[in-house]
Amino acid sequence: MGIPFEIVHKIEYFESDMSGKLSLPMILNLAVLSSKTQSDHLGVGQEEHLSRGLGWVILQYDVHIKRRPTVNEVIRIETQASQYNPFFVHRPFVFFDEQNEEIIRVDSIWAMLDIDNRRMARIPQDIIDKYSAERVKQINHIPRPDKITTTDDIIEKNYHVRYLDIDTNQHVNNSKYFEWMQDVLDLDYLKHHEITNINIKYENEVRLGQEVISQVAIADNVTKHRIMVAAHTSAEAIFTWRSV
Amino acid sequence: MGIPFEIVHKIEYFESDMSGKLSLPMILNLAVLSSKTQSDHLGVGQEEHLSRGLGWVILQYDVHIKRRPTVNEVIRIETQASQYNPFFVHRPFVFFDEQNEEIIRVDSIWAMLDIDNRRMARIPQDIIDKYSAERVKQINHIPRPDKITTTDDIIEKNYHVRYLDIDTNQHVNNSKYFEWMQDVLDLDYLKHHEITNINIKYENEVRLGQEVISQVAIADNVTKHRIMVAAHTSAEAIFTWRSV
Repeated sequence: MGIPFEIVHKIEYFESDMSGKLSLPMILNLAVLSSKTQSDHLGVGQEEHLSRGLGWVILQYDVHIKRRPTVNEVIRIETQASQYNPFFVHRPFVFFDEQNEEIIRVDSIWAMLDIDNRRMARIPQDIIDKYSAERVKQINHIPRPDKITTTDDIIEKNYHVRYLDIDTNQHVNNSKYFEWMQDVLDLDYLKHHEITNINIKYENEVRLGQEVISQVAIADNVTKHRIMVAAHTSAEAIFTWRSV
Repeated sequence: MGIPFEIVHKIEYFESDMSGKLSLPMILNLAVLSSKTQSDHLGVGQEEHLSRGLGWVILQYDVHIKRRPTVNEVIRIETQASQYNPFFVHRPFVFFDEQNEEIIRVDSIWAMLDIDNRRMARIPQDIIDKYSAERVKQINHIPRPDKITTTDDIIEKNYHVRYLDIDTNQHVNNSKYFEWMQDVLDLDYLKHHEITNINIKYENEVRLGQEVISQVAIADNVTKHRIMVAAHTSAEAIFTWRSV
């Protein structure tokens, strides 16, 4: 369901981390790029929804990684708005390598934000119609990530929100949360573990000048994450890794 | 002098800052992309010099900005290795917009690093020969940026080096210094000033896990910057801005 769309993208050196593989934030950025490009093609891009005081926000991602592509690889990303109801859109992304092997699959839940009052808005019918998504009562659900509990051992680090963390929606870009969640793990863990799954749920926006706390509870190949601003949860996630 | 080379690049949303214009770190990343791409074309890319235990490092940049391109603009970057001597290469970059107007000009001084002992190495003759640069006694000099002095009022902020700041050379990528130098300025300054010139000189590498201090002394439309690791200077720069 939904009009299919695709982009082709070459992985550049500045899109990789020290391993030479596509960085975690860039996985999201490239997924979002494919959906933005589709919206532009359909004539309902940023200019159109910003003119109505609306912006798309992502509420949840579920990312399955078979293999992260390396610098100079050319990948293809297929996407479509598959389902919608008046408040939510479900959008899958599939990343393929040059051998046409599926390497990354992302599910996502989107909503529209009223930019002035920072609240969720009803999705305009003429905008959603362009994508030919299936209208459903309830969109396909992404399970909520397991929470950090009071019995978990927590490691945490503080991060100051930087000027370049903020996007044109005037809040911290969703992809930056991955940087805080990954960076709190030590180098030894990151060198010996490769990411296979990320389920992240965004709860509250983070703004310029705020200080966030990135918390993690590690249990072998599973890490549970929470981003806090003071006593409020901004995002929760669960990462699954394989030993390398 | 030097074989000319060019790349064409579309500015994507994740390469911009909140103003919707190409971010400062991305100016450097795109310049370096054009030179890496040329090196690959000439058969003396990363694989070749890494196999000899060598890596290119940039010692100094002088960046002149008429206009930063915005998201979705397609730019063209021309570059060449113009001059060399046994230890240094001078390489200019010129960015053009779709109307073929010059929008950004970058001068740069490069050297080769022995990756194991982290010292400068003699540039292998067979590698530099490929670029057909002019051999000179002394390469064109970039003036040293004015230093912060003891009479300046200094504002400073600490930054912890993050996992994603490190590149495949195992040190902080040169472009990240711009983030620290820009972020120490407050939002009000950044909203009312547009960058026109950056002269940056790198002194010492910064490594994972280190804490840097980003210092700035502001005098109207000129900001002098210093990045320190403990008592050692890692980089100095002078930025020039115009009021907007």
